[in-house]
Amino acid sequence: MMQTIAGRIGELGFRLPAPSSPAANYVPWVASGRLVFISGQISRIEDGEVIGGIAGSDASAETAKEAARIAALNLLAQLAAATDGRVAAIGRVVRLGVFIAATPDFRRHSEVANGASDLMTAVFGERGSHSRTAIGVASLPASALVEVDALFELAGPA
Amino acid sequence: MMQTIAGRIGELGFRLPAPSSPAANYVPWVASGRLVFISGQISRIEDGEVIGGIAGSDASAETAKEAARIAALNLLAQLAAATDGRVAAIGRVVRLGVFIAATPDFRRHSEVANGASDLMTAVFGERGSHSRTAIGVASLPASALVEVDALFELAGPA
Amino acid sequence: MMQTIAGRIGELGFRLPAPSSPAANYVPWVASGRLVFISGQISRIEDGEVIGGIAGSDASAETAKEAARIAALNLLAQLAAATDGRVAAIGRVVRLGVFIAATPDFRRHSEVANGASDLMTAVFGERGSHSRTAIGVASLPASALVEVDALFELAGPA
Repeated sequence: MMQTIAGRIGELGFRLPAPSSPAANYVPWVASGRLVFISGQISRIEDGEVIGGIAGSDASAETAKEAARIAALNLLAQLAAATDGRVAAIGRVVRLGVFIAATPDFRRHSEVANGASDLMTAVFGERGSHSRTAIGVASLPASALVEVDALFELAGPA
Repeated sequence: MMQTIAGRIGELGFRLPAPSSPAANYVPWVASGRLVFISGQISRIEDGEVIGGIAGSDASAETAKEAARIAALNLLAQLAAATDGRVAAIGRVVRLGVFIAATPDFRRHSEVANGASDLMTAVFGERGSHSRTAIGVASLPASALVEVDALFELAGPA
Repeated sequence: MMQTIAGRIGELGFRLPAPSSPAANYVPWVASGRLVFISGQISRIEDGEVIGGIAGSDASAETAKEAARIAALNLLAQLAAATDGRVAAIGRVVRLGVFIAATPDFRRHSEVANGASDLMTAVFGERGSHSRTAIGVASLPASALVEVDALFELAGPA
């Protein structure tokens, strides 16, 4: 049976949100050859509420890890909209960029970023293992706690 | 008539600056296949003055948006130098990275980043619509207020 | 005689470290076509000690530049593991991202980032000249002072 990204996320106990429209003058994704670049997605729940804060100050590492998972669900919503939504349409998760609003003395970025990385490997299996850069930033759009962007490679012709 | 990037920017009421030389040991752009990676360009006016500051502290969102436009003009100066300068040589603006020196409580990053995004769509039309990641950072080279980097795809053979 | 990345680094008076395993759920590199994306590598010395701190506060620009070189050595360790280790296997250093934990008033990011850039041109010569984006961030994983990620292009068939 054809497995979809939405279906796989459902099996994991989550729900694929509707893809959001950018609040500004850009688009959620651009394809170039077999590469698909997804715009930065913030930790906003589907009803519109933003998971905000600063890790190390008013947000714990655990909350930030959950925010990273929420941002990654928004990434996958855009990816599903950019493709036909099948898991098999994705050849590889190439790269994740994980941006965490954090204090100067916060140091658990890797653990936080796993909130996004774990979702990728849970959805795509072996093809979900990716390169990654995680950094702590001063602030994010709409005071979000986490923002994630990504590069995917589409599967080649069979 | 052949339209150039410099001419199109002139029609918009701006001026394409001369491409700056990196102040350090790297180059302004690298092409790989049909992709052109442009190095981060800061909000420096052609005469050398840097638009500096921190959004949310000594710089307003409006000033930061103007700084983003200036950084994007510097990006296009590099792009024009990397190509033959024709608008039609560019197949697509693939991705913008917008880095805004900002306080922890700043939240208008999307509005600021539109200073760069609006220029891309004004110059390239439909092919100017791009993916984007905007974040607030602690500080930027030479105390710049905004830095922008970009990935462009060259037009394919006709 | 075949020149290796490890050998070239030895000639420069440094030592190629063993590639570290990610501390989290991702992989050190992913290849897509001829592009190789290397995950962010922090300024950790091979024995495990992290060069930490914040540039402009408890770390000088000189220390940060040295940290950038150490992070870049870790990048090259991953690149050597991702390829057959020959210098000639690398067609081009396409892009470096340099992330410096820094205060809001730090401004010597370009000088710091040269710690990574200089190593690339020393190892790869002309093919080491790269595009680059350097920014000052709030904090980095494990309180590292510098993190560097990279995109390399493999050499084409002879």
